[in-house]
Amino acid sequence: MRIIILGGDGYLGWATAMRFSNKGHEVHVVDNYLRRTAHQEAGTDSLTPILANLPERTRAWKDVTGKEIGVTEGDLCDWTVTEQVFRDFQPEAVVHYGEMPSAPYSMKDREHAVFTQTNNVVNTLNVIFAIEQFAPDAHLVKLGTMGEYGTPNIDIEEGYITIEHKGRTDTLPFPKLPGSFYHLSKVHDSHNIHFACRVRGLRATDLNQGVVYGIETEETVLDERLLTRFDYDDVFGTALNRFCLQAVIGHPLTVYGKGGQTRGYLNIVDTLECVELAVANPADRGEMRVYNQFTEQFSVRQLAEIVQKAGAEVGLSVTVDSIENPRVELEEHYFNAQHTKLLDLGLQPDLLSETLVESMFAVIERYKDRTIVDHILPRDRWRPSA
Amino acid sequence: MRIIILGGDGYLGWATAMRFSNKGHEVHVVDNYLRRTAHQEAGTDSLTPILANLPERTRAWKDVTGKEIGVTEGDLCDWTVTEQVFRDFQPEAVVHYGEMPSAPYSMKDREHAVFTQTNNVVNTLNVIFAIEQFAPDAHLVKLGTMGEYGTPNIDIEEGYITIEHKGRTDTLPFPKLPGSFYHLSKVHDSHNIHFACRVRGLRATDLNQGVVYGIETEETVLDERLLTRFDYDDVFGTALNRFCLQAVIGHPLTVYGKGGQTRGYLNIVDTLECVELAVANPADRGEMRVYNQFTEQFSVRQLAEIVQKAGAEVGLSVTVDSIENPRVELEEHYFNAQHTKLLDLGLQPDLLSETLVESMFAVIERYKDRTIVDHILPRDRWRPSA
Repeated sequence: MRIIILGGDGYLGWATAMRFSNKGHEVHVVDNYLRRTAHQEAGTDSLTPILANLPERTRAWKDVTGKEIGVTEGDLCDWTVTEQVFRDFQPEAVVHYGEMPSAPYSMKDREHAVFTQTNNVVNTLNVIFAIEQFAPDAHLVKLGTMGEYGTPNIDIEEGYITIEHKGRTDTLPFPKLPGSFYHLSKVHDSHNIHFACRVRGLRATDLNQGVVYGIETEETVLDERLLTRFDYDDVFGTALNRFCLQAVIGHPLTVYGKGGQTRGYLNIVDTLECVELAVANPADRGEMRVYNQFTEQFSVRQLAEIVQKAGAEVGLSVTVDSIENPRVELEEHYFNAQHTKLLDLGLQPDLLSETLVESMFAVIERYKDRTIVDHILPRDRWRPSA
Repeated sequence: MRIIILGGDGYLGWATAMRFSNKGHEVHVVDNYLRRTAHQEAGTDSLTPILANLPERTRAWKDVTGKEIGVTEGDLCDWTVTEQVFRDFQPEAVVHYGEMPSAPYSMKDREHAVFTQTNNVVNTLNVIFAIEQFAPDAHLVKLGTMGEYGTPNIDIEEGYITIEHKGRTDTLPFPKLPGSFYHLSKVHDSHNIHFACRVRGLRATDLNQGVVYGIETEETVLDERLLTRFDYDDVFGTALNRFCLQAVIGHPLTVYGKGGQTRGYLNIVDTLECVELAVANPADRGEMRVYNQFTEQFSVRQLAEIVQKAGAEVGLSVTVDSIENPRVELEEHYFNAQHTKLLDLGLQPDLLSETLVESMFAVIERYKDRTIVDHILPRDRWRPSA
């Protein structure tokens, strides 16, 4: 199958590109190195050393496996780029990771909020129009986020909810309570894609993903040059990955506030499997499927305890600090999100275990000298004036 | 009260500015003449002759009433403009009409879709940040649209719906099924403003307005130089206004498809009263109120019949044509939208009557020689490839 990976230089994008290539698909990656630029500006970096750019990474991939991955270095907000990629490559599936993915980044100030929303909304609109014009039968597999839902006091369904109201019934998009300007941009995308499906006949799958953890996949372990990036900093790092790094370097685990914030989580290898399942089972024309892509729910406190226990097993003395929460969010709340549709397609989850955490410790140990310690604590507050 | 009217050169913006000024408020209008530019590009124009720009219009207003309205000619997407307006004027209320308001415009092609969403989302983000920074206690009164809801098969509530689900209950944003890239931009705005209220303490009222009809207000009739614009063309015209014009010039009323499309409608004088009521009764800090701003529901077919009857009264022979629907929308559907909150605040509706239609005929008659007949029929299709 001809598959485009948008955002193919990222943590998941690069790993996904190698996976599909390894399985014999024809893969083309697109990236404008937005994440690398933002890291450079902030003075942060991936813990894992990654090659300088996509041409180098794909050359290494070819060295190791003999397989080719095509590359476009460019910005999808620039229609001339999007147009050329879709016209030349004629994809059958489009896996769209190509967005600014950070909530703290979007909350820095007005400029970052505007940039995040413009970047994400415009590039997704361009992708929608490019599919319509150049590859109308292609299946858009769009990475959304569980953060679009927020923390409602009812069970979260997969994208839609059947509402009985005053004696009538309809199945409608699940109401959204996004928690940052970034999460809002994903809600905007979801509405735009839903419209393109309903009205223009696009086929799409929106993968509302939980928080991903893990470093290694079957492909990254083939050669050190194939490593994917690993972020632990205040802007791009996420809960479990950051805790593992903190455990290894002897930094207290930083729990925001009470730590009762509960979210869905999944292993990076499950992300790849979910995306593969979505691509292998395309939506119908006019259909927008929504899958909640995570395998387990944890509170931040629970994650900290798991990391602490795993640390004890390997002789790391791990402490846990509660720090002032930079975000505006409920710290104790109801959270129960459905996530059966990917299981129904055949997902076999790799659940979180102390063994997995210990194997993450081992990889982090290898690169721990690269840690930039003064960029772990949060700097961007959700309510700056308060 | 110090009130900014964003989009103060428009059909409703100009009428609203004069109303608040007439009532003794200190009014400042902002506009970048986006609507005028779009008309120039399309070769269309307002039926009513309006003065060349806001400085001329406000000079005429001062001539007639002795009252001053301040003017900024500029683009709210340009932060230097927004910043200066809010810093200098320090508004207590902000009435935000300042968006690209046309569904057909947004559906022309990719460029118009991207422009509409970027323009509307970015200028509203700028307004949110400008209020926070320069006038944190100001009340944002944002014009939304009933079109954000689409036509669900359940009753439409005012912004929020209480959902009982699997034994639990929450009150959440009403699910949205917007019908164009323009309507989507308003849904994006609604989510952004809701977030700014929930997380940053903004006070806001979102007025989900129905289709407005009418030409005259207490202020426009004071002097011909004070007329507000009246659009009937395929891009900016709306159902009843266009039908009235068609009746006067002897053009068949153009009903799209079956004509069962049912929407909320209101008189321009009720729009002014609703906005006044919202401004006079501000939302609390952190609260986003949503009011459905219309007074009656009609199907397109019903409107055509009312205009036909009113025409017969004054000797106009009015015919009705069903033309192929350029939009993708249900032509027969359930529609029942709540609209009690503005009535509770004291709204006294001016309902649609044959007399009102006849008085619109009379004004249109005065300017009918200005009609550009070849821009009445729709040119932009919702599904271009079909």
